[in-house]
Amino acid sequence: MTALPVLKPGDTVGVLGGGQLGRMLALAAAELGLNCHIYAPESHSCAFDVVRDKTCAPYEDEAALARFADAVNVVTYEFENIPAATAKFLRSRKPVLPNPDALEIVQDRLTEKEFVTKLGIGTAGFVAVDSLEGLQTAVSTLGTPSILKTRRMGYDGKGQASIKTPTDTAEAWDAIGRAPAILEQFVRFEGEVSVVAARNAAGEVVAFEPAENLHRDHILHRTRVPAQIPGALAGQAGVTAGKIAAALDYIGVLAVEMFVVDDGGKLRLLVNEIAPRVHNSGHWTIDGATASQFEQHIRAVAGWPLAKPRRLGRVEMVNLIGDEVNDWRKYLAEPGACLHIYGKGEARPGRKMGHVTYVFPE
Amino acid sequence: MTALPVLKPGDTVGVLGGGQLGRMLALAAAELGLNCHIYAPESHSCAFDVVRDKTCAPYEDEAALARFADAVNVVTYEFENIPAATAKFLRSRKPVLPNPDALEIVQDRLTEKEFVTKLGIGTAGFVAVDSLEGLQTAVSTLGTPSILKTRRMGYDGKGQASIKTPTDTAEAWDAIGRAPAILEQFVRFEGEVSVVAARNAAGEVVAFEPAENLHRDHILHRTRVPAQIPGALAGQAGVTAGKIAAALDYIGVLAVEMFVVDDGGKLRLLVNEIAPRVHNSGHWTIDGATASQFEQHIRAVAGWPLAKPRRLGRVEMVNLIGDEVNDWRKYLAEPGACLHIYGKGEARPGRKMGHVTYVFPE
Repeated sequence: MTALPVLKPGDTVGVLGGGQLGRMLALAAAELGLNCHIYAPESHSCAFDVVRDKTCAPYEDEAALARFADAVNVVTYEFENIPAATAKFLRSRKPVLPNPDALEIVQDRLTEKEFVTKLGIGTAGFVAVDSLEGLQTAVSTLGTPSILKTRRMGYDGKGQASIKTPTDTAEAWDAIGRAPAILEQFVRFEGEVSVVAARNAAGEVVAFEPAENLHRDHILHRTRVPAQIPGALAGQAGVTAGKIAAALDYIGVLAVEMFVVDDGGKLRLLVNEIAPRVHNSGHWTIDGATASQFEQHIRAVAGWPLAKPRRLGRVEMVNLIGDEVNDWRKYLAEPGACLHIYGKGEARPGRKMGHVTYVFPE
Repeated sequence: MTALPVLKPGDTVGVLGGGQLGRMLALAAAELGLNCHIYAPESHSCAFDVVRDKTCAPYEDEAALARFADAVNVVTYEFENIPAATAKFLRSRKPVLPNPDALEIVQDRLTEKEFVTKLGIGTAGFVAVDSLEGLQTAVSTLGTPSILKTRRMGYDGKGQASIKTPTDTAEAWDAIGRAPAILEQFVRFEGEVSVVAARNAAGEVVAFEPAENLHRDHILHRTRVPAQIPGALAGQAGVTAGKIAAALDYIGVLAVEMFVVDDGGKLRLLVNEIAPRVHNSGHWTIDGATASQFEQHIRAVAGWPLAKPRRLGRVEMVNLIGDEVNDWRKYLAEPGACLHIYGKGEARPGRKMGHVTYVFPE
């Protein structure tokens, strides 16, 4: 990898991925006087619509990747399922941030959980599963209920199957396509929080306060900040995210999702998942803080100092999933509702189409 | 003019003008799921860089204007010096908002001041000037010091000449190019405030609080909100802006600049200028309010309800003029500074290159 760049206004950040996260990164970059070059395979990528430079090509198209690398000052990504070969190819030409080694660790639920565990951070119990026999052994080790998850490519509940009794194993193994997996102990949690944190080349870490998340059908439905957890636990959540970022030698924004569990009357945090990118549970920062997660990510990958965001009130963010976006008129008319629509066209079920943020005086 | 449209997400707002105001309008539109199509003659227009659709053509190119009109749902503009013929041409094809009649009134300092005066709103004394002789008569009527201003195309102190003594008339008349002008009485003011207000098709008016402006070399240097004026005067400033917007049958955002004068111990407001567009003194609303002037303008021209913005603290906005933008590193590192750079390339003297906003807890 070449030396880490320090961008100046007018320079270009290359972004792999053209969804709403790329779109919001590009909008944040534009406020700072930086261009984004969006690289995405889908011709209707909503991030294409807010940038000057775009490449519509498969992630395997080395000629397109080479031109893209030539046209940008640094490469980043808006989602974690970038093929490792793509990251490797680009990395030989331009800095790729966050570094693809971190990406590889967290792309795989097994290496991710092993990594976190080695840092002394708690997770739900887990066992690697490579076969139906392995699954049966794992179920007898961890007990039921438990959850079978593919090691790779899972998000929003995809690639998962619940195991309620030991007799569910064959069906679950089929349901996830018999792919390399892990079995996770089911955690009875009091709540789910996430910490969105930024780390830059200087090793500076700035975390937003933990947000409290409510999921529906495995998709984030609502985020509230501050989370209703004790201050000491909130502080610990931030420290945990910083520890993970530092151990990954991470540059950019990441999100760490955690379960809050009641451990015999004492609340504890278990890390559930690391997202090596800006994250849905950080969307509240656009309207609810003096600097957003998107600005923080751009600052980090640009080699710039991080902002020191201040929260502007009590904040609530609600996702608009699928045809919920058709309620846009209602939100436009609602005093205090900050409406965001991603320009994605068709409102398919489960598709994240927009969000609404409320900032209440505290 | 065709019926006023009500846009839906995915629709396109056509914007005449490609400067930073067009850029910030486009960024606000993108958050709401609308596209902007920027029309500007200059190939390096910074607003081009954040939109999907752009037309680079002169304002007199009727073929380009016709294609532009076909491609958008509504037309608006980011600066007031659009040729009247351009507005008229577009208006025959698509709604142009704010309406070009309002634009015509305020494009001309004489018709603007006559319009304001007829509404019973105070201005500095003024006399129309069409010749050197006329100027001499005007000076003997209004006295010195006074200021000669071209009726059209003036901004940031351009097209103005001070008259300190009656012997300055010939030089001043030459300085402004002997163009049709007005002579304005010099006003000894305590301060300058501006009100940025939005009005929509339903006649709803929502004004931001008056902002207090400090100019340097005739260019806005700093805006502070709230303005340090009595509450009653602030209320009156908002009412005045609303009255002007209603009388112009205005749809969109306008800014009304006012002088605060001490009239024998009692503070009074005199309207100095109306800007029929989003305005530099409203840039603080991007970071300092729950909805910005840019969002308000987009909502208004989209036929949508206006937001009810709430100020998020005590706010200060500082313009980065010319090479002041080279201090970007300093502002990036300053806690609480929200940096905006417009992507305009060369930092010529007097050119608005960016701004910085601070939001302080109250």
